[in-house]
Formats: sequence, C-alpha cells, structure tokens
Amino acid sequence: MEERFIQWQVLVEFSKRIMMGQHVKEEDAEKVADNLVMANLRGIDSHGVARLQRYINGIKKGYIVPDAAPKVVKETVVMANVDAQNGLGQVGACYCMETAIQKAREHGIGLVTLFNSNHYGFAGYYSAMASRHDLIGVSMTNSSPLAVATYGKAAIFGTNPISVAAPAGRNKPWILDFATSVVPRGKIELYNRLGKELPEDWVIDPDGNALTHPATALRNLKEHLGGGILPIGGSGELLGGHKGYGLIVMVDILSGVLSGANYGKSVVNKIDGKPNFPRVGSLFMTINPDFFIGLKEFKERMDDYIEMIRNSEKAKGQTRIYIHGEKEFEEEQKRKRDGIPLDGKTVENLVRMSEEYGENLEFADSK
Amino acid sequence: MEERFIQWQVLVEFSKRIMMGQHVKEEDAEKVADNLVMANLRGIDSHGVARLQRYINGIKKGYIVPDAAPKVVKETVVMANVDAQNGLGQVGACYCMETAIQKAREHGIGLVTLFNSNHYGFAGYYSAMASRHDLIGVSMTNSSPLAVATYGKAAIFGTNPISVAAPAGRNKPWILDFATSVVPRGKIELYNRLGKELPEDWVIDPDGNALTHPATALRNLKEHLGGGILPIGGSGELLGGHKGYGLIVMVDILSGVLSGANYGKSVVNKIDGKPNFPRVGSLFMTINPDFFIGLKEFKERMDDYIEMIRNSEKAKGQTRIYIHGEKEFEEEQKRKRDGIPLDGKTVENLVRMSEEYGENLEFADSK
Repeated sequence: MEERFIQWQVLVEFSKRIMMGQHVKEEDAEKVADNLVMANLRGIDSHGVARLQRYINGIKKGYIVPDAAPKVVKETVVMANVDAQNGLGQVGACYCMETAIQKAREHGIGLVTLFNSNHYGFAGYYSAMASRHDLIGVSMTNSSPLAVATYGKAAIFGTNPISVAAPAGRNKPWILDFATSVVPRGKIELYNRLGKELPEDWVIDPDGNALTHPATALRNLKEHLGGGILPIGGSGELLGGHKGYGLIVMVDILSGVLSGANYGKSVVNKIDGKPNFPRVGSLFMTINPDFFIGLKEFKERMDDYIEMIRNSEKAKGQTRIYIHGEKEFEEEQKRKRDGIPLDGKTVENLVRMSEEYGENLEFADSK
Repeated sequence: MEERFIQWQVLVEFSKRIMMGQHVKEEDAEKVADNLVMANLRGIDSHGVARLQRYINGIKKGYIVPDAAPKVVKETVVMANVDAQNGLGQVGACYCMETAIQKAREHGIGLVTLFNSNHYGFAGYYSAMASRHDLIGVSMTNSSPLAVATYGKAAIFGTNPISVAAPAGRNKPWILDFATSVVPRGKIELYNRLGKELPEDWVIDPDGNALTHPATALRNLKEHLGGGILPIGGSGELLGGHKGYGLIVMVDILSGVLSGANYGKSVVNKIDGKPNFPRVGSLFMTINPDFFIGLKEFKERMDDYIEMIRNSEKAKGQTRIYIHGEKEFEEEQKRKRDGIPLDGKTVENLVRMSEEYGENLEFADSK
C-alpha cells in the first residue's frame, strides 16, 4: 500500500480501542496508545503504532499478560523495585516513572527498577514525564539480543536505549534518547526499504566481518544466524566502540542484573519455538534540581548552556548545531499540524486490524 | 631522559611529600598521591604523577587552594551538594564519594554533587571506592574545554569522563571508565610521542575539517586556536557522534549545571592571561544492590553475566572479549610487581622536583 496520513488523535483512539479488544484495561490501553503515537509524532516511527501487531502477538502467544498490574516488591522513600508481572512494558514503566517523580518531589531523588516486563516503547517518553514535572529524568531498558560486544560476533546484548531529560526555562527541555548500539534495528529496516547499502561499521556477519547488505543483516538478526549490530563507535576501539559496548553493559546491569530481570542473551520471547517471558528490566530515575542549585537557577543555567551550544561556531558547510530533543519537537509540531505519515506496510497492517476487530479507522487524506 | 621504573610505594610517598610541601594537609596529600599513583598502576599514565607539576602550578597561581576543606551546603539522608572551595579535586571528590557510600549503605542510594572544584584525577578511582563497599558507584566530572559538538568547530566542552563500577563475586568488579570525547587529550599526546598520524575522526582543525597531525592538534588545543576533539563516534552522526555529543552534555548538566559549578567553555583556569578558578563540577552516585535484588544474588548474577560475555564467540582473528576493568587490573598486578614505567619527560620533571624541594626519589632500576 501507499503512504497515508492520519491525525494523531484518531491514531490514539484507534490504538487504544485495539488494545482494549485484547483484554487490556482502558487506562492501560490509553498509556500504550499515547506512548506509541507520541513516538510517531516525534518521528521515531520504529517505536510507533507499527508495534501494535507485535503486542497483540505477544498477548496471543502468552508472553504478554494483558491485564497484569505492576506490583511493588521493595520500597523506601527514595527507591522501589517493581514486578511488572509480565504485563505490557508501558504499563509498568509509567507506574515506575510516576513513583520516581513522586519520590523526587518529596525527597530530591527517586530510583525505581522494573523487572518481569516487556518492550516499553521509546525511552524518551519516560524521561520527558519527569522533565514536565521540573525534574531531571533518566530512563533505560534492556531489550532482546541484537548487538555484539567489541571483538565478539554473537548477538548477546539488546540495543539497550538510554534517555536523559532536563527541564529548561525559555527553551524546550533537553532530551537525549539513544540506542547504545550504533543504530537501532529500525535504522537497518529503513536502509532496506530505501535499497541503500549499510555503512561498514554498523553490522557484522556470522564471522565478525562487516556486513553491508541490509536484507541479509535483518534476516541474520531475525533468524539468529550469527553476527549482529555493533556498539556506538562501531567495530574495534578506534572511534570508541569499546565505550559503546560498555554503555550497553551498563544499561543491562542497572536495569536487568540489579532488578531481578533477565539480562544479556536471555531477554527472549521464544525458546526452541515456544513462547517465553522475556522478563525485560528497566530503570527510572529522577533528580529534583530544587534540592541542589535550586529550580529557578537550574532552569536559567540550562537556558544559558543550551544557547551557548546553539550559538557556538559551526563547522565548515554546517548551518546548525542541534540541541538534543529539538529535531523531535519540531517533527511533533509538524505532524500535529499535517498528520502523521504512515508507511505502506503499517497502513496495510492497521487496515487489516481495523477490519478484523471492527474498529473504525479514518485517514486524514481520505476525503 | 630515558624511561625509568619506580616502585609504586616510593612514588606514593614522594607525591605525598611534594604535595605537603605545597601547604596541603597530610591526609589530603595522601589522597592526591594515592589517586595519581593508582592511575599509573592501572596504566592510565595521562592521569598519573605527570599531573603533579600542574597541581603545583595551580597552587602557585592561586586557582587551587591547597588547604581548602569541602563544605556541605545542602544535605538530606540521600543527597548532598558540596562546595570544594576551590581545593584540590581529589580532596572534594573523596569526601563526596565517602558521603555517598555512607548514604547508600543506610538508605539504598546516595547522590552527591561537588562544585567549585578542580581536576579530580581519573574518574574510575571514585566508582571503585563504591564497589569495594559492595555498592554500584558512578563518578563523572566536567573539565576544561577541549571537545566540540556535532557539526560544531569550537572546543566548548570538556572531555567529561564517566565511570560506573559494579561489584561481582568470584570476578573482579566491572569498571567502565571513559572520556565522552572519542579520545582524551592524553591519547593525542601518545600519538605525538610515537610520531603517528591521528585517525581522521579524532580531531578537527579550526575550520572543522579532519586534522591528523598530532603536534598541530595539541598546539591548537593548548593555544585555543580553534577546532577540537570530536565526541565518541567521531564526526557527524554515522557512527553515533551525536550520541557521544549527548553524553558530553549529560555529564556537564549533571555535574556542572545541577551543582552550581561552571560548565561548558567557562571551565578554565585562565582568562586573558590571568588565573581563574575553573570551578569544576562533579557527581558521585551510589546504589546499594541489597535494597534491590539483594547483594548475594546481585553478585551471583554479575558473575553469570560477566562469564557469559567473556565466553561468548569471538570475531574472526580475535581471541579475547575484554570485560571493562580487566586490562587495568592486569596492568596493576604487573606494575606492582615490576615497578611503574615513567616516560622520560615525567622522569625529568620528578627529578627536578626532587632537587627543588629536597625530597628523596629512588628509582627501582637505580642499582
């Protein structure tokens, strides 16, 4: 099918109703829908409504429990460890970040870990929840194995994203959100759709050599044929690949090992063809600037810092230094106005769901 | 002069006495000496005793106050913000990490920031203090401007290192310790000594083009002639340079903006030829696994995870996947046994100090 445009509110309502049709409570379905559509609004389409089908599959196969409620297993005034009970990642993650926000508002810091969870959407959703409450927010999660260690050739790590958000005053909040692998799988899928060769330092083949053919890379990842995505910085140590590998492991330790979740190569939803709880682990942290330099001064200093960076000298041929989060905010404004563009495959998928579950779906360019 | 070897205990005692000769209290001089020599033991020579001269210069010029004591300006049971009062970085940093350790032992978490500080040595020293107390430790600091933003060409950021350490059981603790620039300045100095060209994606010239001549790179950095060191991942976004740039900024926000320290291009010890307090900012964090999965189980899981990584398949031509911290532990064992090798320039410097301040200095290969 062709690319179509859709209004974001329509997409939220549709996604919510689809999830409710899978025995997800209305308030939980709202969280999942808001998280997925926010990814689409910000241009992070790999984490948008294209994921709906995977969540439905997970529920049908049994490794996502649609009506599970997060359960606190340990708690103090500043920390908690939460069992997602194999529910939807967004449900556990929202609960944890809300808890961390409350703790930081009262006590300056909040650190909440989540285990027995599932895919939680894009990491920046949760850090931004904190920045809307005038807190610094941190969100990270492990994920299913796709990435390799420096000098390794087996996909033993997830692409383990990290997001950090900090509120500013007259500027938009600073939001860093990135996979600790050099690229997430979605980027390889994009190159595949565009028929472009991959750069040499993104993916290795089952022997550990550079693999530039995107379709082969995707098949190797999907069928676990060996090789995988390299860490930030690419292969070896020359451009910091060993640092990227360290960041991947750091996320796994803080969100997986510490919480009681699975970690490394065991974060899988299938073993020997049978469904398996991936038991994903995530970490959420909040820091209240009011307990340090003071909120007002923090925001002023953030503005000063952001503007110092933005206005600093550009390299030859460059016209702009981006502040983290800016590209996504601009995309959000544009897509709220013009509608969200959905690629042909996603359109096909949503239309089929609409028919199968009898939920109305109207595109913005229908008339 | 030629390379010489020296016993680490001799070097600690010498460094301590040299610092005491600069009006540094004995207990503070011990901290600085231990920190510098530990860097040498672990093979991080750019942060070893070669720094002694710079600290003395800082004291003589007035931007390091030798007898300053850290002063707590805000504190709760889990956090503190500490004014280093322009003292030696190691003195403030040790105080902060000790405070964070105490807080995490009692309350599960500790987060302590430091402002008005100076160069604190290597970041991994402080995270390792936490792991020796069975805690996860985080240490990060901003530093004097040497690094550029993605698409920028001015050195507006420090090389802002991060270290994270986590205790294990039968394995050594996992210790990640890295500059968020693609390389620290010390690596460029090493290439210069070896007469090697720099890889293209390390340093840019005043226009923003690749600069591969190490001596020119060092001169440009020293004399602020423009250009600088690229973030992890190198130039542009292809190998994650924008992620490295994000990490550099994250360290500046968490250690500089949040604490009340200087940040970005204002972390300088000289303005218009006159000495200036750089007012460095640092952050120290501790997490007690006993409040989450439990200490015993955490260590078992760390062992399992580390061994899974170490034993996973190697890429063609590779024989080993390194665990973060391993190289440094092995170097420490070797150097404790064989002595610490000091390059000719450092030897010359130490001999001159020994004569100037009348402190005995005996090399291990003297007899």
